[in-house]
Amino acid sequence: MYINIKNLLKEGKTTQEVTLKGWVRTFRSNRFIALNDGSTIENVQVVVDFENTDEEILKRITTGAAIEVKGTVVESQGKGQSIEVQATEVHILGDSNPEEYPIQPKKHSFEFLRENAHLRVRTNVFGAIMRVRSVLAFAIHDYFQQNGFFYVNTPIITGSDAEGAGEMFRVTTLDAKNPPLTEEGNVDFKKDFFGRETNLTVSGQLEGETFAMALGKIYTFGPTFRAENSNTSRHLAEFWMIEPEVAFLDLDGNMDLAEDFIKYVLKYTLERCREDIEFLNNRFLEEEKTKPQNERSSMSLIEKLEFVINNNFKRVSYTEAIDILKNSNHNKKKKFQYLIEEWGADLQSEHERYLVEKHFQSPVILFDYPAKIKAFYMRLNEDGKTVRAMDILFPGIGEIVGGSQREERYDVLVEKIKAMGIDEKELWWYLDLRKFGTAVHSGFGLGFERLVLFATGMTNIRDVIPFPRTPQNAEF
Amino acid sequence: MYINIKNLLKEGKTTQEVTLKGWVRTFRSNRFIALNDGSTIENVQVVVDFENTDEEILKRITTGAAIEVKGTVVESQGKGQSIEVQATEVHILGDSNPEEYPIQPKKHSFEFLRENAHLRVRTNVFGAIMRVRSVLAFAIHDYFQQNGFFYVNTPIITGSDAEGAGEMFRVTTLDAKNPPLTEEGNVDFKKDFFGRETNLTVSGQLEGETFAMALGKIYTFGPTFRAENSNTSRHLAEFWMIEPEVAFLDLDGNMDLAEDFIKYVLKYTLERCREDIEFLNNRFLEEEKTKPQNERSSMSLIEKLEFVINNNFKRVSYTEAIDILKNSNHNKKKKFQYLIEEWGADLQSEHERYLVEKHFQSPVILFDYPAKIKAFYMRLNEDGKTVRAMDILFPGIGEIVGGSQREERYDVLVEKIKAMGIDEKELWWYLDLRKFGTAVHSGFGLGFERLVLFATGMTNIRDVIPFPRTPQNAEF
Repeated sequence: MYINIKNLLKEGKTTQEVTLKGWVRTFRSNRFIALNDGSTIENVQVVVDFENTDEEILKRITTGAAIEVKGTVVESQGKGQSIEVQATEVHILGDSNPEEYPIQPKKHSFEFLRENAHLRVRTNVFGAIMRVRSVLAFAIHDYFQQNGFFYVNTPIITGSDAEGAGEMFRVTTLDAKNPPLTEEGNVDFKKDFFGRETNLTVSGQLEGETFAMALGKIYTFGPTFRAENSNTSRHLAEFWMIEPEVAFLDLDGNMDLAEDFIKYVLKYTLERCREDIEFLNNRFLEEEKTKPQNERSSMSLIEKLEFVINNNFKRVSYTEAIDILKNSNHNKKKKFQYLIEEWGADLQSEHERYLVEKHFQSPVILFDYPAKIKAFYMRLNEDGKTVRAMDILFPGIGEIVGGSQREERYDVLVEKIKAMGIDEKELWWYLDLRKFGTAVHSGFGLGFERLVLFATGMTNIRDVIPFPRTPQNAEF
Repeated sequence: MYINIKNLLKEGKTTQEVTLKGWVRTFRSNRFIALNDGSTIENVQVVVDFENTDEEILKRITTGAAIEVKGTVVESQGKGQSIEVQATEVHILGDSNPEEYPIQPKKHSFEFLRENAHLRVRTNVFGAIMRVRSVLAFAIHDYFQQNGFFYVNTPIITGSDAEGAGEMFRVTTLDAKNPPLTEEGNVDFKKDFFGRETNLTVSGQLEGETFAMALGKIYTFGPTFRAENSNTSRHLAEFWMIEPEVAFLDLDGNMDLAEDFIKYVLKYTLERCREDIEFLNNRFLEEEKTKPQNERSSMSLIEKLEFVINNNFKRVSYTEAIDILKNSNHNKKKKFQYLIEEWGADLQSEHERYLVEKHFQSPVILFDYPAKIKAFYMRLNEDGKTVRAMDILFPGIGEIVGGSQREERYDVLVEKIKAMGIDEKELWWYLDLRKFGTAVHSGFGLGFERLVLFATGMTNIRDVIPFPRTPQNAEF
């Protein structure tokens, strides 16, 4: 049996005989192998007795090669590591031709690594990101399960197109070139696999609500899709979303939940992924150094995480926010691309960033937005013009959470559905929730990759998901 | 603040004042409300002082109505419960018209409940199933994270169609009726969203392998899809799958992992969902009673779970299994629809069931299948005709796990890809794993809904997923 490097370093026991299996990161002076097996960002140094090792084997110890090492754990002579392994045997499991292997021990551009997404996770940066992503995902399940929420897998393929959250992908088995047609000459979706037109889900919220109104507290955590042609560093066509939904919870409770949840998962991850996040922290600081002084972050990655964990998010109504923005020097000096002139304006990314990064210098929860710029299912306030919506805005990321108290009143909801031109028959089951045992309830959606961006200090969302899907790109 | 019923019953403290919110399950004698809030299968009995309660309120306490109750916790007079709540106030939050509400306190057919999937989780059976499903999902994450595996979200939309695991759904944004055509008159998928033809994934295995060959131990847990027109009680078009993949692990280790994993998650769930599983156990026994004596299960649901948890799975080679089947009385008396005549035959469900339910009366791991009936990526044995594949067969369920040691040798893999008529260029990235630092590695896939079926004693897979997707059905 062999031991993984994480456990080997944790035990730190010398004099024991071990077997290691992993991949060569570097091999220098024909003597020192930096060996990594993915269990941790740390390599273990393997010292080869080159005078007693076959020349043919030494030649095959190249970056990327898989090897098995038997040897003795001893105190390390080198700095920065407590132990090393003196090899008694080295076996080559799989070669890696240095002329061909793309991941050499040098700096590769992120774009190059995206094109080699099947191999990039063998680098320190992407290994760290993907381990952090995994722990963060578990922290999310852990938080909800500990707090009495039930995990619900809402459908991915949906016949319901009423939510209007964005452009959708069609899912079909019809012949692409010659689809069956109706007598009127339209595509006959009755002949499609599901007997109707179907799409990939943009959100599990509506289905999630049906479960919250039975089990009380639920959450989803699954893939969602947007067929929008946005080639930005913040958008993916396929991304993972977390959507809790809670019966008997109002908007204030919803804000408390979201804030508590985010703090918990970031704290959990910071504690358990210390080495990975320290590595990413250094990478972040290096990157910041390449920027002009006035664009550099005032905090390191770890400081940003600790700031969020330890400080209350500022809660600000949309109306207050508009006042702040309208009266800001930024607005007066026309530094915004979209000037804020009156109540009712939809906030752009530049406004959100101003509030979070300049004005409050803190995560911000904006609430009570104008009904006109928000979705039909959000609860109308007594003023008749705002809804119980909330968005959480994060420095460097922008919107990370969008949520609301849901409209629980049947008549009001029907009216809003009609006003938005949605066919109310499509939503018969959603309306049933308001006909049978309706109650106040709330929920939110959190884009998982945005959270991973924040936790890792990365800036392009394509670098925090294993195989990004974006316009013109579905490789692998 | 209000308390949920699970915590109320756990505390069991009398004399305290509480506020409860939930849904009325039944209301009898104008006095006793069975209240449920989804946190547990247990209802709490609320006793209404009907002489001092408004007649109008009493009328509105109907099955399905959402109510808020304030009252005092007292020792219960009734049997089967330790406490009850004497109401001082009852507020109707949401009415439920008994003339219209579909979920009345009587036995509904599962088919009727499937048509009301948005409300069925308000019944005891489906509440229990969905809570068990949630805990089982968490147990899966817990097992892998505790054992050093990293969670990987492999892509849902894929441009790779090489795996050949089944029929696929096309994902597209092209105009359904008039798609753009190439000069040759074919559909021009270069103009589609991703610049190529894309489908919904049938498995994350191949992408998962890329991560295992960097991080060592990984698992996926996400939705997968099959566009097969099978209307059976065991198939869904959309289902969730768990796929671990481990570097440096051979087939024996893979069998150990799968067995240990299944036992852990079932034990975890049985311990934490005791009330729900006891309820489902009773339902199972009731259903068994409706069957002829000779078709009844010899074990209750809980006995079946404990049997799997406490006994070793039988490990049997395909070759041994064929011998057993060929020489069985079943075969000789021609009771099989497909008679077993020679080595190489693909096993049908009837054969698997015979082995598991009649011959071994235990979960069975079959291994070393003929290469010809298995996928291209499975490792060829030295005999040149079998591959290091394994299937785990469960009583009543059939195949619950399918896995293998993967072919790690570049030349052998290329040859198998060619022999299967797959374009090797499509798999350039998969082949790279064998070019750069290849090593023995293994993994398996487990259909989550099959496991939920087993854990809940249900028989139709449509009843263990919130909103089933099957041919002609994508409602909700």
